[in-house]
Amino acid sequence: MAVAKKMRDFVENGSMIRKMFEEGARLKKIHGSDKVYDFSLGNPNLPPPEAFKRTLRAVVEADELELHAYMPNAGLAEARSAIAERASAEQGLAVDSSHVVVTCGAAGALNIVFKALLDPGDEVLVSSPYFVEYGFIADNHGGVLRSVPSASDFSLDLAALEAAMGSKTKIVLVNSPNNPTGRIYDRASIEGLARLLERKSRELGRTIYLVSDEPYRKIVYDGAEVPSVLASYASSMVATSYSKDLSLPGERIGFVAVNPAADDEAALMGALALANRILGFVNAPSLMQRVVARIGDACVDVAQYRRKRDLLALALKPMGYDFSLPEGAFYLFPRCPIADEPRFVGLLKEENILVVPGSGFGAPGYFRIAYCVEDSVIVGAMPGFERAIAKARGLGSALER
Amino acid sequence: MAVAKKMRDFVENGSMIRKMFEEGARLKKIHGSDKVYDFSLGNPNLPPPEAFKRTLRAVVEADELELHAYMPNAGLAEARSAIAERASAEQGLAVDSSHVVVTCGAAGALNIVFKALLDPGDEVLVSSPYFVEYGFIADNHGGVLRSVPSASDFSLDLAALEAAMGSKTKIVLVNSPNNPTGRIYDRASIEGLARLLERKSRELGRTIYLVSDEPYRKIVYDGAEVPSVLASYASSMVATSYSKDLSLPGERIGFVAVNPAADDEAALMGALALANRILGFVNAPSLMQRVVARIGDACVDVAQYRRKRDLLALALKPMGYDFSLPEGAFYLFPRCPIADEPRFVGLLKEENILVVPGSGFGAPGYFRIAYCVEDSVIVGAMPGFERAIAKARGLGSALER
Repeated sequence: MAVAKKMRDFVENGSMIRKMFEEGARLKKIHGSDKVYDFSLGNPNLPPPEAFKRTLRAVVEADELELHAYMPNAGLAEARSAIAERASAEQGLAVDSSHVVVTCGAAGALNIVFKALLDPGDEVLVSSPYFVEYGFIADNHGGVLRSVPSASDFSLDLAALEAAMGSKTKIVLVNSPNNPTGRIYDRASIEGLARLLERKSRELGRTIYLVSDEPYRKIVYDGAEVPSVLASYASSMVATSYSKDLSLPGERIGFVAVNPAADDEAALMGALALANRILGFVNAPSLMQRVVARIGDACVDVAQYRRKRDLLALALKPMGYDFSLPEGAFYLFPRCPIADEPRFVGLLKEENILVVPGSGFGAPGYFRIAYCVEDSVIVGAMPGFERAIAKARGLGSALER
Repeated sequence: MAVAKKMRDFVENGSMIRKMFEEGARLKKIHGSDKVYDFSLGNPNLPPPEAFKRTLRAVVEADELELHAYMPNAGLAEARSAIAERASAEQGLAVDSSHVVVTCGAAGALNIVFKALLDPGDEVLVSSPYFVEYGFIADNHGGVLRSVPSASDFSLDLAALEAAMGSKTKIVLVNSPNNPTGRIYDRASIEGLARLLERKSRELGRTIYLVSDEPYRKIVYDGAEVPSVLASYASSMVATSYSKDLSLPGERIGFVAVNPAADDEAALMGALALANRILGFVNAPSLMQRVVARIGDACVDVAQYRRKRDLLALALKPMGYDFSLPEGAFYLFPRCPIADEPRFVGLLKEENILVVPGSGFGAPGYFRIAYCVEDSVIVGAMPGFERAIAKARGLGSALER
């Protein structure tokens, strides 16, 4: 026993998403990668937009003095300004550059936010299903993640959230468009949550912060709108990344934008910058800060994700899979046709189809299909999806007999 | 009180280095940047080597598929192999790619190492003076930094280290060439430390790991050799960065290389990769991983730092400043001419000269001059250094009277 006990346990119980990723690598070695249908990872398959590539080349060619140098921990002035300007437009609330910290992606953003806010034992409240990483991040900083089931249509269950709030609640974390459900929390939900948080903060005599993890804000379909968290509640912040809308998950670039009216905002901004430093990020990667500062509203071609969504949904629906159409992000989250979720995920694996069990998101009985893949993967997997549900029904009837 | 209590205290007591950095910005606004002599920050002033720039352009131009995509948390196979090969040559011990994790710089590397190894209350032992950041990093992961004064020539005091080792000691951290002293721990010291750690690990019935933070390994003068920690002790690892030898501190790229013979190495490698993920790094920046994989042994022009060292040392010595010549890194660490360190640092500030007080490194009575600056800064500061020591002597005599 030399490795920290907690880390040993974490490694042994590992992330289901990563496990499926490794299982996929193993199967691809055996069967060839064109015979394995890997829907396990939210790794955008679209290339970054041309504007990104052009800007990256221009920044590298210009080779400005200090291009790779140290900078203030909160980020380059140029990047903070550009991000503040765009975030203000998106959120419908003026955020100046002093309220922005550039981060190593959304995971880096959430780590510094939790580090800045959580005292030992403080709770972070989230609606399930949720991205499993949140639990680790809360734990990193002495906090505890507490989850509350969402409503049956995956919208926020405000009554359940209220019932879960207590003297330890410090943060409510929302993720919309949601991973894994694709649900966007509508304006009424966000406004309702904001009023609830105002009331509970008063009742409990301490501010509950509202943190919005929204890397899929721009990946929405059919003209859907993502209501602003910043405009709804004073003690709020956005902690997000460019990983999905610019297809840059390997580069680790994102930001925190804090509502200037947030409680204790001056101390908070200082704590976020310090957390960026001492957690070892120091600053978000310098070159990428310059690039995102200069690309304006560039975004991947969302129409392609929409097409993939429809391709998948139109094929799975008639087979009998039960799901609602995602409003955003690039995940489908169907119900398992049998109660035994690992069994059904196993049936899919027999067909060389890799998905992530709902348990990996605190929602057993479902599974996640990440459709940010080549069309050929979606098309190629269809017969397997059909055979798996047929087998599941056979099992179902066998059990009924 | 909304921000975490600990973070509020940290922000208030902030880093002296960063404080001087901000003070510098303030003075530059008032007096003009050519009238302020800022030696406060270890921000390399040399440009990255041409090989780096060429490789960066080539990687960006080639725009390979997956250039910016997700990858395993431990890093790209290509980067891990190249780093393993170079580390093996530098350390004189075969390290394969499975024992390398690519990280967001040395600060990222140390964070994942401490996260992977420290149980609550475990101690990290370091020889002072030391980089103040180590204390924050240990604290991030529930550990405690414990420092032991080095010998009067800033070499390791093995007897003092031994006396400080106990049932809580989990890590001994060495930093050579040292920030702030410029001292390189010689072979006898490293071998002595290794034997001591073997004996104490046996006595205490638990492995003490030896972690080497060595970003200045290549920045050495007069043919000095940096003895290998990996080759000296089984349960050892290097946690370092390319920030200094490639002048890339803003890009956040470094690595951990673990001795394959380290105790519990399989669990340790799993824990390091997991820590990279859950602390929010996820992986070191993708583009930079490809670049460092392909640049071979490139390094900044160390001769220029040597020249700056000599320029500074040859001017300060005759004025009466007391220091030993740095063997590596780019810091001079003189003794304060008066016992009152803040007073003397204040006298330098009156001359618009910014240095970091030794207290910032756990070594009161000294101050650090980071000479990784333009020659004009060194030359321009000379009259101020002379006036400051003269004033200090006046104070000294005044006190004697």
